[in-house]
Amino acid sequence: MERTDAGEPGQGPGRLKPGRGRRKAEDVRHATLTAAAELLLAEGVHALTFSKVATRAGVSKMTLYKWWPSPGALAFDAYFNAFQATLAFPDTGDIRRDLTAQLNSFVDLLNRNAPVIAGIIGAAQGDADLAEALSTHYVTHRRALAVERLTLAQQAGQVRADAHLEAIVDQLWGAVYHRLLMPALPMTPEFVDELIANLFHGIAVPEAGKPAT
Amino acid sequence: MERTDAGEPGQGPGRLKPGRGRRKAEDVRHATLTAAAELLLAEGVHALTFSKVATRAGVSKMTLYKWWPSPGALAFDAYFNAFQATLAFPDTGDIRRDLTAQLNSFVDLLNRNAPVIAGIIGAAQGDADLAEALSTHYVTHRRALAVERLTLAQQAGQVRADAHLEAIVDQLWGAVYHRLLMPALPMTPEFVDELIANLFHGIAVPEAGKPAT
Repeated sequence: MERTDAGEPGQGPGRLKPGRGRRKAEDVRHATLTAAAELLLAEGVHALTFSKVATRAGVSKMTLYKWWPSPGALAFDAYFNAFQATLAFPDTGDIRRDLTAQLNSFVDLLNRNAPVIAGIIGAAQGDADLAEALSTHYVTHRRALAVERLTLAQQAGQVRADAHLEAIVDQLWGAVYHRLLMPALPMTPEFVDELIANLFHGIAVPEAGKPAT
Repeated sequence: MERTDAGEPGQGPGRLKPGRGRRKAEDVRHATLTAAAELLLAEGVHALTFSKVATRAGVSKMTLYKWWPSPGALAFDAYFNAFQATLAFPDTGDIRRDLTAQLNSFVDLLNRNAPVIAGIIGAAQGDADLAEALSTHYVTHRRALAVERLTLAQQAGQVRADAHLEAIVDQLWGAVYHRLLMPALPMTPEFVDELIANLFHGIAVPEAGKPAT
């Protein structure tokens, strides 16, 4: 049986024996994700190895091998974890206000870390394993959180019943990523307002065919 | 004075002396862009050098140095040129139909070349010179063509006068790139329809506050 310094993630402290000096699984997980996020943001995704993270976090490498299928998976888990609080969705009951606030936090985060974040996403391109890790450990989770908030807005009668919620994710956050990854125009609060206005009002002239006034 | 095998790009054949065996500037430009695009799509942006392109196109390396500030600039010029016809904007007078057709061509192009195109865009991340070349020699031109078509639609009264045209570019083509570069959901004709429907109709319930029916 392999010896590890912690139980499986998600299992309760009942399985742990703190009296014998073991760290709780949640503490180990937290230390690992923090160390991985620091390494990732400082040196990029290709520099992140299980060895480096284990040393920095003070955990056994075997634990990392057991918990994450690859360094890329750990990297994007850490990335998700690092920005989870900043990118949380407010729910004041007003979807336009809440989306505007969250998108401004997102834009601010990207502007403060543009080369690093672009580099991390860039590294996943043309690398099937990293692309899979990005999708599984970051994109899918972030999309689910956005769709969850949009679904509440739909149920509250603030978003059309026939709106395509997954496509909205691409038309708000994806639109911002577009300016990060294919640069030409800045990511500003005005841009956020434009994205919301276009998408909420619609861009079609109500009576199509008549000249716009 | 430097000796080159062709005049400056954009100058007429009047400056050339075909009788003395020189190739016309447009021919040299065409051969160069074709060779560069082939190299780019086969080997990626980092493999593209002036030497390789010059050899493949049968032009002097000096000409490439005179016409392009960097191999990255040549790469994205070639990339723009290679897909210009495929991505041309139809103008049938119906903006929804025209955008749907163009976006389907775009989606089809990306699906057929997904790893290559993702790799080219990925290479520009975290590399300031390549990012600048991508912006100047590709993104800016493609955005201008889209905004030009959207402006005609606005003038024809099919797009609201207060719509934000640059943001539309991010909410249609940027939304598609989002699914290429941050993969989770497929790029399909249905996705194109959803993008157009969300953006043209708007996602807000007309009388906000009332439950959607």
